[in-house]
Amino acid sequence: MRFDQRHLLGIEPLRPDEITTLLDLSDKYVSLNRARDKRSSTLSGLTQINMFFENSTRTQASFELAGKRMGADVMNMSMQASSIKKGETLIDTAMTLNAMHPDLLVVRHPHSGAVDLLAQKVNCAVINAGDGRHEHPTQALLDALTIRRAKGRLHRLSIAICGDIAHSRVARSNIMLLGKMENRIRLVGPATLMPSGVAELGCEVYEDMNEGLKDVDVVMMLRLQKERMDGGFIPSEREYYHRYGLDAEKLARAKPDAIVMHPGPMNRGVEIDGTLADDINRSVIQEQVEMGVAVRMAVMDLLARNLRARPKEVMA
Amino acid sequence: MRFDQRHLLGIEPLRPDEITTLLDLSDKYVSLNRARDKRSSTLSGLTQINMFFENSTRTQASFELAGKRMGADVMNMSMQASSIKKGETLIDTAMTLNAMHPDLLVVRHPHSGAVDLLAQKVNCAVINAGDGRHEHPTQALLDALTIRRAKGRLHRLSIAICGDIAHSRVARSNIMLLGKMENRIRLVGPATLMPSGVAELGCEVYEDMNEGLKDVDVVMMLRLQKERMDGGFIPSEREYYHRYGLDAEKLARAKPDAIVMHPGPMNRGVEIDGTLADDINRSVIQEQVEMGVAVRMAVMDLLARNLRARPKEVMA
Amino acid sequence: MRFDQRHLLGIEPLRPDEITTLLDLSDKYVSLNRARDKRSSTLSGLTQINMFFENSTRTQASFELAGKRMGADVMNMSMQASSIKKGETLIDTAMTLNAMHPDLLVVRHPHSGAVDLLAQKVNCAVINAGDGRHEHPTQALLDALTIRRAKGRLHRLSIAICGDIAHSRVARSNIMLLGKMENRIRLVGPATLMPSGVAELGCEVYEDMNEGLKDVDVVMMLRLQKERMDGGFIPSEREYYHRYGLDAEKLARAKPDAIVMHPGPMNRGVEIDGTLADDINRSVIQEQVEMGVAVRMAVMDLLARNLRARPKEVMA
Repeated sequence: MRFDQRHLLGIEPLRPDEITTLLDLSDKYVSLNRARDKRSSTLSGLTQINMFFENSTRTQASFELAGKRMGADVMNMSMQASSIKKGETLIDTAMTLNAMHPDLLVVRHPHSGAVDLLAQKVNCAVINAGDGRHEHPTQALLDALTIRRAKGRLHRLSIAICGDIAHSRVARSNIMLLGKMENRIRLVGPATLMPSGVAELGCEVYEDMNEGLKDVDVVMMLRLQKERMDGGFIPSEREYYHRYGLDAEKLARAKPDAIVMHPGPMNRGVEIDGTLADDINRSVIQEQVEMGVAVRMAVMDLLARNLRARPKEVMA
Repeated sequence: MRFDQRHLLGIEPLRPDEITTLLDLSDKYVSLNRARDKRSSTLSGLTQINMFFENSTRTQASFELAGKRMGADVMNMSMQASSIKKGETLIDTAMTLNAMHPDLLVVRHPHSGAVDLLAQKVNCAVINAGDGRHEHPTQALLDALTIRRAKGRLHRLSIAICGDIAHSRVARSNIMLLGKMENRIRLVGPATLMPSGVAELGCEVYEDMNEGLKDVDVVMMLRLQKERMDGGFIPSEREYYHRYGLDAEKLARAKPDAIVMHPGPMNRGVEIDGTLADDINRSVIQEQVEMGVAVRMAVMDLLARNLRARPKEVMA
Repeated sequence: MRFDQRHLLGIEPLRPDEITTLLDLSDKYVSLNRARDKRSSTLSGLTQINMFFENSTRTQASFELAGKRMGADVMNMSMQASSIKKGETLIDTAMTLNAMHPDLLVVRHPHSGAVDLLAQKVNCAVINAGDGRHEHPTQALLDALTIRRAKGRLHRLSIAICGDIAHSRVARSNIMLLGKMENRIRLVGPATLMPSGVAELGCEVYEDMNEGLKDVDVVMMLRLQKERMDGGFIPSEREYYHRYGLDAEKLARAKPDAIVMHPGPMNRGVEIDGTLADDINRSVIQEQVEMGVAVRMAVMDLLARNLRARPKEVMA
């Protein structure tokens, strides 16, 4: 088992055995995080910079805690409040930070592809914390870890991804990861919220929620991303909940032991019933958050090992 | 001497001997903070999260420094800029952070009772850093430490709390703490700024500042909290200063060695004369800030000892 | 070689041998920052507070990384979002932080002289990270280090400082530093952007860029600070670029091995041609950023040595 990546830009470039390596190591970090003393020196002497060009409480917090618990020097850059206002370009900002010799650069950006572009310009390891509608690889990895722990395996499962798939990098990364691991994926939602080219994704597509959930092992709900819907069809929340909001009745179509997932933050009463979200017999939403910190620790640990194995490049 | 609390939600649940235990330990941290090397490993391996739903430079800074100096991994969450905007509830936010396995959660919130509610939902120790008009226990503890160090005791003192008592959680926590330690408390201010049910607090009430300050050992001024006065009576600053602003003349009614306190930030020329506030023979306002860091170190130290003594709960 | 300062408030009070001491130590930190393990315990046990009353991504990040890599407990205070809004004065804020026993206080403020004023009120070492149009000493030191490494010496060089000199604390600190080290300084720019009293600075003044750059060793461009131009002459960007923007043609007037500098953030196409800025054969702009972290480490290291050599003052 090896992990050969220099960056984590997406799920797309990962081999199945690399995914398994990541999840196996993540399991160890879950145990460490549950202990009272959570400090290690895995990243000691390394500098981690979190560059968030979009706000995200939970993802930034998850990366920050992951790095601090492994002894990295962690710096947050909230890039809205920054010299971007003074007219600096993304690349100038990246080059500036690069000259300060970070080792791990965690980047969230509203534009698809921005993180890949940035990774070409810097000497350190780059982790994509979500770029536009493109990828959100650590979210897909934490979802995979949650499923594997709940179901005992990560293959030959039937998984429904439901809701606003068109605007979701979470869905995109999950479709790739779960496909690589040989699961059966259903996409469930209104035609207006399906991505173009959905036929080529190798998934079954359902417009009817009751049909889509039939006998699945996992129900993965998505956040209705109103903030990304520019000018397109916006369903009323009441109508949307009626047709696509997950409640006990719709969930009854799935297998009796099916688990319920949501990447958060939730719109209670829009895409999911609040009582169901809190039902610890069905919902693994809190476990997803817990797995998130562990997965990010595993990712940074493995990237740092690869960094240390390479001779450090001298700057131009 | 013992300290049996799992959380520090307010002064109300504390026994007098617990207060004394806290202040005795705080005295040790005062010395440590005055040394050049201020680092200890008391909280090493623990995660402290500061969740501030209301801005507060000094309180957040005080908790942050306290945690860092004791070796905790400290993370600040400015909750205005967070997913609250995306419609997440207080409890969702708390549950999300809880899943990341913090050990100490420091919370400020604009609503009375919000911190108590949150403490019921999480596995870690919660510290109330101020909730609505309810409690601000570390402020009352730092005030008590300041008084005890200046006066040599914390009982049988005559203490005047002056100004905007109705809107003040600082006043409320101080009244409880100073009452438990058997001091004589006077509340001084206009009737419009007295809380309803003031008669039941066991304090003497004065509308005339000159009478209220007569022969007291301690004059504790409060900030005029205009931002909390919704629709009620708002005195003009000039009129307020004339009747209730502390100056040398009014202070002359108190004992010759009476000390002057203010929780900050001050409105100079509104509730207190600027020259008097800076007079190091009478004012202990800077000492209050210094004691604040020490008290927060003692609180987190004792809560962490209790955490370590309990087996860690496994998450559901 | 000695460094006798208690604070770093500007270049003005520094002796040439103190500047050399700083640069020599900075060279060592450049090597440390290029290693994979960048952690030392130089500032262990000390508290560094960054008080930025003006936003600055790069300067704040540079100081933050410098402190963290040397093991300090680092706290950022973004003072726009702070109790300043509640009416607290600069001095009250400084006194409050001082009472929390910081050791190193890094301050940026929009008003010239504010940092000097603050330094008189506190017990710790103060570092000026830029105050109004007055000084920005660490910028001048990092520019000097960059020049010394590129040119092999820091004396008898011909250096052109170009553009908006009137509004620039960077120019002011550089003129003093480069003058103390016995270089020949030319100021190049429109008369409207020259400071009053320019004749007394001991520099040659040019309004024509082609003449000003003739045979210089170093071309130091400045940012056009539109945000500081209140009511005065504002050139159109197109006209400004035509006359004073650095491009390959104008640079051809300088020595063949002349280096190009810019303190960032750049307005590409206004004061400098983007292609030239990225040309690693001529531009040392990324090196300036890299030197910035090293210089700040050296400054804080030397100030901390002086702090430790003095007995700590007891607070009033």
